[in-house]
Amino acid sequence: MTKILKRMKGTRNKLDDVLIIGTVALDTIETPFGKVDKALGGSATYASFAASFFSKPALISVIGRDFPKAYLGLLQKRGINLKGLEMDDKTFHWEGFYEYDMNEAKTRKTELNSLERFKVDVPESHKGIKYVFLANIDPEQQLETLRQVNKPELVVIDTMNFWINNKKKPLMEAIKKADVLLLNDGEARQLFSTANLASAANSALNLGPKAVIIKKGEHGALLFTKNKHFNAPGYPLENIKDPTGCGDSFGGAFIGYLAKTKDLSERNFRKAVVYGSVVASHNAEDFGLNRLKRITIRDIEQRYSEFHDMREF
Amino acid sequence: MTKILKRMKGTRNKLDDVLIIGTVALDTIETPFGKVDKALGGSATYASFAASFFSKPALISVIGRDFPKAYLGLLQKRGINLKGLEMDDKTFHWEGFYEYDMNEAKTRKTELNSLERFKVDVPESHKGIKYVFLANIDPEQQLETLRQVNKPELVVIDTMNFWINNKKKPLMEAIKKADVLLLNDGEARQLFSTANLASAANSALNLGPKAVIIKKGEHGALLFTKNKHFNAPGYPLENIKDPTGCGDSFGGAFIGYLAKTKDLSERNFRKAVVYGSVVASHNAEDFGLNRLKRITIRDIEQRYSEFHDMREF
Repeated sequence: MTKILKRMKGTRNKLDDVLIIGTVALDTIETPFGKVDKALGGSATYASFAASFFSKPALISVIGRDFPKAYLGLLQKRGINLKGLEMDDKTFHWEGFYEYDMNEAKTRKTELNSLERFKVDVPESHKGIKYVFLANIDPEQQLETLRQVNKPELVVIDTMNFWINNKKKPLMEAIKKADVLLLNDGEARQLFSTANLASAANSALNLGPKAVIIKKGEHGALLFTKNKHFNAPGYPLENIKDPTGCGDSFGGAFIGYLAKTKDLSERNFRKAVVYGSVVASHNAEDFGLNRLKRITIRDIEQRYSEFHDMREF
Repeated sequence: MTKILKRMKGTRNKLDDVLIIGTVALDTIETPFGKVDKALGGSATYASFAASFFSKPALISVIGRDFPKAYLGLLQKRGINLKGLEMDDKTFHWEGFYEYDMNEAKTRKTELNSLERFKVDVPESHKGIKYVFLANIDPEQQLETLRQVNKPELVVIDTMNFWINNKKKPLMEAIKKADVLLLNDGEARQLFSTANLASAANSALNLGPKAVIIKKGEHGALLFTKNKHFNAPGYPLENIKDPTGCGDSFGGAFIGYLAKTKDLSERNFRKAVVYGSVVASHNAEDFGLNRLKRITIRDIEQRYSEFHDMREF
C-alpha cells in the first residue's frame, strides 16, 4: 500500500495515460435516499474520475454550452486531460430513479442533445495512448475511436442494454476488437441469450476478448479468461445512496490500475477487478460524484485490504 | 485435504452425530432441462445426505405409507440414522417448476399429508446430540425439537418465505434460540424489511444468533458475525439442471463439517460455508439427489480447492 502511494507521489508527471471515450452528462437522479438535479455524470466522467486515482486519463466526449463552469473546474482539478472534450449545443441529460432494491435504474427522460451529432475526433496527441477505455456510448462511436487510435496495448469495452437492443451489429464488431469486455449480469444474459453467466462468458470469449468481466452490483464481479475464473466479492455496504456510475467507476478504476502497473497478467487483472469493485463500492455511498470527490487513494487501499480479509478461508 | 480423507477413513465409527429435523418429501419437479416425478426430496433428506459426507446424521421427520422402500434403502445406505423417522398417512408431496432463470421455485401443488399432524418426538438416544439442524419445516416443530433436546452445542436454523408469511411469531422465537441463522437473500430482505443485506444481517445478529449466513444461489453466500464478514463465491456452473435442495444441502454440509471438526471459531465457520457451497453446487448439477448420490468426498475436496483458486488475488 505504502509503495503505491510513494510511486504515485514520486512519478506524478510520468503517470500513464488512459484514453476514455464515453458520455458526459447532467443527471437528475432520485433514489429512496434523496434527489439531485443536473449533477455531473456520464460514463466517461465517472470512468475518468475513477481512473484518476491511478493514472492520468484523457477524456473524449462532448458537452453543451449549458455545461456549468464549476464542473469543468472539477474535472480539471482531477488532472483529467480535457483536450478531447468538445462543446456543442446542449449537454446530454439523463433523468432516472431507483426503487427500493436499487439494482436497476429506471429512466424517466433521455435527451441526447449534443451527443446525437457527436463525431469522434481523437486529438493527435492522444492517438498513441496505450490504454483505451470505450466506456458506455453508441458502439459506432466506440468503433470510430478504435479506427483513429494507433496501436493500443489494451482495449476495454463497456456497454448497456440500450445498445444491445438498438445497435447490436456495430456493438458485436466493437466487442470483437476489444481485449476486455465489461457487462453487467443482465446484459450478459441478454447479449448471449442464456440465463447462465458461465455460458455467456464463454460465448463472449469465443468472440475475441481475452477476458470478460461480469459486474453483478452488490454480488461482486466475475472475471473469466480462457482457463481461469476469478470471483470478486461485493462489499457489504450498509448505506447505498445512489448506484449511478458504479459500473463506469468500476471500468475506470480497472483500466487505470492496469495502466499504472503495466502488467496484463491474469493475476494482475484480478487485482484490477478488486480495485474496480473498491472504487465502485465507494461511489454508491453518496449521490453523483460526491463520494469519489472526497476519497483518497488511502481510502481505496484500506478497503482493498478489507476485500482481502473478507474472503480468506 | 488428504488429512481430511485420512481422518474420515480412520474414524468412521467415531463420526459425530448431527440431529436434523425437517421434511422428507416426494417431489415432482420440472425445469427447462427435464422433469422428475415423485423423486426423493425434502429439507431433511437433502440436509442429511449432505451432512453424511462429513458426519453421521440422525433424521427426525415423517413419511407416509406410500413411501417407496427403495428410498428408505437409499437413506440407510448413506448411514443416516432413521430411528426418528415416523410413518403415518401419506408422504408430504411438493410439485413445482423453475423457469429459465432457475433462481426461484414456483409451486404448483403442496400436499402436507402426514406432515400436517406430525408431532415431534425426539428418541431418547438422540436427545444428547450436540449439533442440531432445524432444517426448513414449521417453526413450531423447530421450537418443539429444541424443547426436547438436552443441551446442544450448536443450533442451526433454516426457514422459507412460507413460514415468514404465515408463522412469523414462532419463527422469530426459534431464531432467538439458534446460534446460526440460514436465509436466502429474498427471505433476509423480507424478514427484516430492508433491501440491504448487510442491514438485514445486523438485525438478525441483534436477535441472538452469533452468525447469519445469507445464501445467494449462483452469487455465493455471505457469513456475518459480530465484527467480521466473509464472502463465499458461487461456483460458475455451466450446467444447472435442478436447484431443488441446494439450500438444504448447503445447511447439511455446513453443520456436518462443523460436527466433524468440532471447531466453532469464525475461521472454521468460513470453511464450513465453503463446504456448504461446494456440496450445494454439486447438487444443482442433476435432478433430485442424483448428483449427491454419485459424488464422493474426493469430488468435494477437489471443488473446495477450486473455490480457493478462484478467489486469490
